[in-house]
Amino acid sequence: MTLAVRYTSARTLDTAPAAPSSPGPGEVELAPAYVGICGTDLHIFHGDMDARVQAPAVLGHEMSGRVVRVGPGVEGWQPGDAVTVMPLRWDDTCPACRAGHQHICQHLDFIGIDSPGAMQQRWTVPASTLIRLPASLPLDRAALVEPTAVAVHDVGRAEVAEDEKVVVVGGGPVGILIALVARAAGADVRVVEPSAHRRLLAEELGLTAWNPADDDVPELVRRWTGDAGADVAFEVSGAAAGVDTAVDVLGVRGRLCLVAIHPRPREVNLHRFFWRELTLVGARLYDHGDFERAVALVADGTIPAERLISKVVALTQAPAAFEALEGGGDVMKILVDCTDDAQGAAV
Amino acid sequence: MTLAVRYTSARTLDTAPAAPSSPGPGEVELAPAYVGICGTDLHIFHGDMDARVQAPAVLGHEMSGRVVRVGPGVEGWQPGDAVTVMPLRWDDTCPACRAGHQHICQHLDFIGIDSPGAMQQRWTVPASTLIRLPASLPLDRAALVEPTAVAVHDVGRAEVAEDEKVVVVGGGPVGILIALVARAAGADVRVVEPSAHRRLLAEELGLTAWNPADDDVPELVRRWTGDAGADVAFEVSGAAAGVDTAVDVLGVRGRLCLVAIHPRPREVNLHRFFWRELTLVGARLYDHGDFERAVALVADGTIPAERLISKVVALTQAPAAFEALEGGGDVMKILVDCTDDAQGAAV
Ligand SMILES: [Zn+2]
Ligand SMILES: [Zn+2]
Repeated sequence: MTLAVRYTSARTLDTAPAAPSSPGPGEVELAPAYVGICGTDLHIFHGDMDARVQAPAVLGHEMSGRVVRVGPGVEGWQPGDAVTVMPLRWDDTCPACRAGHQHICQHLDFIGIDSPGAMQQRWTVPASTLIRLPASLPLDRAALVEPTAVAVHDVGRAEVAEDEKVVVVGGGPVGILIALVARAAGADVRVVEPSAHRRLLAEELGLTAWNPADDDVPELVRRWTGDAGADVAFEVSGAAAGVDTAVDVLGVRGRLCLVAIHPRPREVNLHRFFWRELTLVGARLYDHGDFERAVALVADGTIPAERLISKVVALTQAPAAFEALEGGGDVMKILVDCTDDAQGAAV
Repeated sequence: MTLAVRYTSARTLDTAPAAPSSPGPGEVELAPAYVGICGTDLHIFHGDMDARVQAPAVLGHEMSGRVVRVGPGVEGWQPGDAVTVMPLRWDDTCPACRAGHQHICQHLDFIGIDSPGAMQQRWTVPASTLIRLPASLPLDRAALVEPTAVAVHDVGRAEVAEDEKVVVVGGGPVGILIALVARAAGADVRVVEPSAHRRLLAEELGLTAWNPADDDVPELVRRWTGDAGADVAFEVSGAAAGVDTAVDVLGVRGRLCLVAIHPRPREVNLHRFFWRELTLVGARLYDHGDFERAVALVADGTIPAERLISKVVALTQAPAAFEALEGGGDVMKILVDCTDDAQGAAV
């Protein structure tokens, strides 16, 4: 038997034994090594996504691990291969898929939300979701590939170009990753983040961070840009004030890339969109190319993944880690260690 | 002496004699023939733009006319030349201008709002604003070139392509012109408009028009597009409900072109922008290329300008025409006839 972390009902996770089954045709059984806890996992834990998530549900979609067994007809993968997973399954028949946008398939199965996730010791997924990891990349760092792929997608959607001035509103894990990816694209980046802990980390990574509580951010941007305004803003905060800031800082023809989830409609200064001919671009998930690029950025150290990992907890400690995250606190990314050794040590 | 229509204070226009002055260096004196009354002119008339408009102010920026005199140093223009005016003066030094977006100059002088407009018998403008009209184009139709240039710009900002499905929310003059320009680009177009009179005109022009009060527009779009949603929506209504409709009808990666002015912030379903990776594009005014294209579309009959002209009134009747427009009514475009003959007849 192996262990799995399961969401059972609002604010309740347990660890339960699971019986591994043989991988079917086209499937691969993995041994997850590290699984990141993401904002979406916390939303599920809060009970906010009960309409979508079938409890008991195994969470987790930011992972690294190794192939254990391959199912019939699977070629190109061997037991022991280091992999991460692009956790998307699409139907290939809906209008979105037919238009080539499979990652926003109208019937998308997001593995880890709509079907069982990675926070367990054995995990069976379609071979088509596997992304190969370089042997030199430590698996803990590799768990940051998935959120880095999000950032790569966002920076691509915003078409960030060299020497552009970019404001990232929200300095959590995704915001910091966007800032780093945009910097790697040659942009000059500022991060807007109220948490002192997160601003400090941003500064340690060589980014300039502003506190929206103390600083007049649009005024700082005017000075920074010689009254031109920023070329690109990323809204990663999920807050109403974050939307306002992202709109206010943009110059003529500026692009606002909307990354955060805003469950309720937000008041938006549409007049500014008209007046300055701004563009708002929604960005969701990633495609295969984004993942490949993310692997390269994490592997070559452009993304200093080790600096973003606040803590690693054993799988059996995952429920406690979720509860601690609920209270906020000075953390960036927490990884769950799913390896058998870790469980031996922790149980 | 010549006559001018002047805005003096909220809901008050008069006609007053004006003393023509010789055109200065680089300037040209025109005899306006026809001047359209536009939504912005009505906003000024209502007193909504008193903070910007210096009363007494001569209104009007949708015009056709002829060159009367050219100032020192002006080349290429002769008395009698038929022209329209692109009513923009920019500073060429601000960040917007330096980035090549002169039409949204941060210190733009919009002639007819920020400086005297065309609703008069003699009008002096910079020669750089002149756009030549073909001799074969009747001057009343040519007064529709300016709003057509708006539509050309909007369709360009939305990057409407052949065979795309386009929804225009708002079937006033600009909405109808957008629909016609999008159709000329090969798009399949639907117009959403509550006024029966405007829907009828749209249908007479070969467009399909839906009544948002009676029809479930998003459902109609789903059926029309085989559940894919529209490729492009234009928000031309200025209403909160129009924004919702424009967002709701779009399919994956759809583009919403924001044309209408929304003076106050609007609630926007940002989640849909995220979920479907939508794009919102602000569109304002036009550039020289848009004007040249608009002249061609009006001249070749692609824009049946004569069908959009509801009424032509003499310059001395302009104040009464503004008052009538205040009450709404079944009109599309009203032109003011500024020719001397018209005044002789009307006074
Ligand atoms: Zn699909
Ligand atoms: Zn300028």
